[in-house]
Amino acid sequence: MKKSLKEKILTLVEKDLADIEKAMVKNLTPHLPLVKDVASHILFAGGKRLRPLLMVLCARLCGYNGTYDKTLSTIFEYLHAATLLHDDLIDDAKMRRGQTVAHKIWNNATVVLTGDFLLARSLSIAATTNNPKVIQVVAQITEEMSQGEIQQLHRKGALDLSEAEYMDIIYRKTAVLFQGTCHTSALIAEAPDIKADALADYGLNLGMAFQMTDDLLDYSQDSKALGKGVGADLKEGKLTLPVIYTLSKADKKDRIQLEDIICNPKFSKSDFKILIKYLKAYGGLAYTQKKAQIHTAKAKFALNGFEDGQTRQILTYLADYALTRKA
Amino acid sequence: MKKSLKEKILTLVEKDLADIEKAMVKNLTPHLPLVKDVASHILFAGGKRLRPLLMVLCARLCGYNGTYDKTLSTIFEYLHAATLLHDDLIDDAKMRRGQTVAHKIWNNATVVLTGDFLLARSLSIAATTNNPKVIQVVAQITEEMSQGEIQQLHRKGALDLSEAEYMDIIYRKTAVLFQGTCHTSALIAEAPDIKADALADYGLNLGMAFQMTDDLLDYSQDSKALGKGVGADLKEGKLTLPVIYTLSKADKKDRIQLEDIICNPKFSKSDFKILIKYLKAYGGLAYTQKKAQIHTAKAKFALNGFEDGQTRQILTYLADYALTRKA
Repeated sequence: MKKSLKEKILTLVEKDLADIEKAMVKNLTPHLPLVKDVASHILFAGGKRLRPLLMVLCARLCGYNGTYDKTLSTIFEYLHAATLLHDDLIDDAKMRRGQTVAHKIWNNATVVLTGDFLLARSLSIAATTNNPKVIQVVAQITEEMSQGEIQQLHRKGALDLSEAEYMDIIYRKTAVLFQGTCHTSALIAEAPDIKADALADYGLNLGMAFQMTDDLLDYSQDSKALGKGVGADLKEGKLTLPVIYTLSKADKKDRIQLEDIICNPKFSKSDFKILIKYLKAYGGLAYTQKKAQIHTAKAKFALNGFEDGQTRQILTYLADYALTRKA
Repeated sequence: MKKSLKEKILTLVEKDLADIEKAMVKNLTPHLPLVKDVASHILFAGGKRLRPLLMVLCARLCGYNGTYDKTLSTIFEYLHAATLLHDDLIDDAKMRRGQTVAHKIWNNATVVLTGDFLLARSLSIAATTNNPKVIQVVAQITEEMSQGEIQQLHRKGALDLSEAEYMDIIYRKTAVLFQGTCHTSALIAEAPDIKADALADYGLNLGMAFQMTDDLLDYSQDSKALGKGVGADLKEGKLTLPVIYTLSKADKKDRIQLEDIICNPKFSKSDFKILIKYLKAYGGLAYTQKKAQIHTAKAKFALNGFEDGQTRQILTYLADYALTRKA
């Protein structure tokens, strides 16, 4: 049987993932068992470890052959987990990766503070590099991410959200972290600026494609695989590109019906089917898919200056995976 | 008329405070007006600017004569504001410094994220020093503070909270920030380790005295001046040293009455008077006062190795102020 893209990648990075997993446990080091429990709930619940993996692979692509990359790679997973903890609370989500979210098991306060701890832990690990540029990149990621989330929150339910604003939001809330992860790997490998810029560009475009695919999955049959309900974004008032584009193209009559569905957080299954029909008819899904494809192509193009070989091949696979993943 | 200690200090640091205020506005730089509004609500509401002031004065004591100290001093006020935003939310506080708390004006989500932004902003400013030690200290402060708050939260309402645990909690949630602030000032002044250690020690002890005085104020007639209600800590289930000590000394009968009051978050004014009576009778207030005095004395002692002069004098005044302040 032919291996799926995901299986292919997993076979190639098996050893790296095992090392990353060990580093994730080793570098957490909280004083209190409670913090460890809450952090572990989000950290060890089947995350893809995509960000740490990008760090390790990009560093290798730059010729890095030390052992500190695994430790540093945890920065980006801890940061990611911190934002997930805060975001799930903010969105009052119920499920994440098929399990109950942390604030439903513990309480809001513990979750806010464990998120703070993970943010701080990330920056402490960054500080151990003694490399001011690395630290600046990591601090900058956190600044941008918090602002991206606020922007999204502030514009919740806004029917006039433009494509440019959407791009700005997903850049900040998702792509900045991918960009910073790949950029950092070049910095610790002491790669020349041109390579650091290329990898930052790879990460940025991968992140954009990854988020657009995520937003598409929310309108696909497979979204159950995400471990949350279909149409979850819309129920939270998050307008994403498939909807934004469709609204911009719909005629007056259809737009009214669309707005009715969008503005009703308790829309029915049949409402949702109507919505999907419009997303297909007006090309909102296809347009988003195309935009994601362009970012994937740009991500791959950014790898052109690097030596061909297995590491570059895996990074290319990962770019394809960002586009085609089903969960 | 004789000037109060506070007036004396304010006259001596007038120029520094004006510079700090300017730096506070200049270095905030969020992308979104909303973030600026929420951050400004907590940042520009009559805070004492004690932490930035400590940074500027301690740097001067180490012979620093650059201009970057004002910028860096904002780190510690932003960090402080971030924790206030998150803590007020966690405690579901209503008032802070005589005004409505941020999460009652905006919403929980915006406040969590603005707190995250301020944490990140602090670390970004720290990163501009290009000094890994400074960055490590700042990241470490954030890690410890979040854990101190979690520990306090986790032990809320616990009648068996020991004096040692209380000390551990206030060290993490308050003194670590003072310690880190004073330590950082020595680092940017490139002072020898012995001076950096002495200033860290000054800050640590000042912080401990400051928090104990804060905890005493919650049981004093003057606590209205704090901008929150008398007995607010106890209503939130926070057992502080005056109560911990009193519980440890009370006979069985009195202890039962005390526990009844403590465990009732809606205790009456007359209940509170009875509690105060016990805090006085069993020496809980006096004991806390004495412990705070010891820390103040240690803080002043830590300054002994530094040149005598106006700057050292102000730092001595500040140690006294930490002990005698009424708000």
